Amino acid sequence: MADNNSLNALIEGLRRLPGVGVKSASRMAFHLLQHDRAGAQVLAQALQQASTQIRHCARCHTFTESEICQTCLDPSRDASKLCVVETPADQAAVERTSAYRGLYFVLMGKLSPLDGIGPNDIGLAKLFDRATSGLVQEVILATNFTAEGEATAHVIAEALKARGLKVTRLARGVPAGSELEYVDLGTIAHAMVDRR
Amino acid sequence: MADNNSLNALIEGLRRLPGVGVKSASRMAFHLLQHDRAGAQVLAQALQQASTQIRHCARCHTFTESEICQTCLDPSRDASKLCVVETPADQAAVERTSAYRGLYFVLMGKLSPLDGIGPNDIGLAKLFDRATSGLVQEVILATNFTAEGEATAHVIAEALKARGLKVTRLARGVPAGSELEYVDLGTIAHAMVDRR
Repeated sequence: MADNNSLNALIEGLRRLPGVGVKSASRMAFHLLQHDRAGAQVLAQALQQASTQIRHCARCHTFTESEICQTCLDPSRDASKLCVVETPADQAAVERTSAYRGLYFVLMGKLSPLDGIGPNDIGLAKLFDRATSGLVQEVILATNFTAEGEATAHVIAEALKARGLKVTRLARGVPAGSELEYVDLGTIAHAMVDRR
Repeated sequence: MADNNSLNALIEGLRRLPGVGVKSASRMAFHLLQHDRAGAQVLAQALQQASTQIRHCARCHTFTESEICQTCLDPSRDASKLCVVETPADQAAVERTSAYRGLYFVLMGKLSPLDGIGPNDIGLAKLFDRATSGLVQEVILATNFTAEGEATAHVIAEALKARGLKVTRLARGVPAGSELEYVDLGTIAHAMVDRR
């Protein structure tokens, strides 16, 4: 396909998606060009629109098209609680539970020194300002339970406790619906320590 | 993310790519918006460009930006040989071997009655016209060695043999560099039957 610049450019463009290598990109390009040109146009417009319109909420950092996102503007939310999550997808997961009616702060990442992601890249200064503004009485850390998520939670917890705030973390334990025999040992050990 | 139309549109757009579900699409959208907005713009332009510029070569059906592709126009190619492949990616694989200097016909698919893909969808009438035009002396069937690829090869072979043409198929056998112990039985059986 040496003489086909548009096709090569499309394959290169698709490779910028995470988890897409040259074979997947070729397959995607073939599918779009052969079976779904309308889809290619739709995706092109969506990319263009999203990459120019979407910015970060001035209060919680999540993706929004306005200055302040709808969640932050919602007057029925309990402003005394602030839930810290890594990504908008994590925020959406918490929202779907309907178990939380407070506000959010979305880090848009996690501390990851190996990848060069430090406190400034996840807006910790802004989080600390917001948490200590007087309105917030409890900060709930809902970062992921991975090594990096735990480290991020630890750093935030230490900093906020030093400022005299109440800081909690999502409970760790046995997932709903699971049988003990099939749950990993680390999870059972944590559930045993945190028994209530 | 209920109030975020651009983001939802982007996730829906990414889901039109083959093999991408809603979780992958969300992850891709997050990556592009948070870490690679330039990539989103590049991909949008590549999609736009490719979906308007790329058409099918009037002779061999492969993707090209011109009326006739570079391969078909190359005067150093042996026009007496015609290699039938399923996709431009298959054509590129044959080209990389440098073992073939004839021309191609790209089906842009394969016969697949369950998916409603019949002879008209893969341009068989055009292939038969071209093969019987007088120039072509040998048709080499290089469709994939899957059930559908084999069926497609069989249909084409029967039709062309009935028109008195020489039709060959890529050899089936033990792949280069492999140890017999680890080769599947069907392949060894075929290699035994086709021994030379």
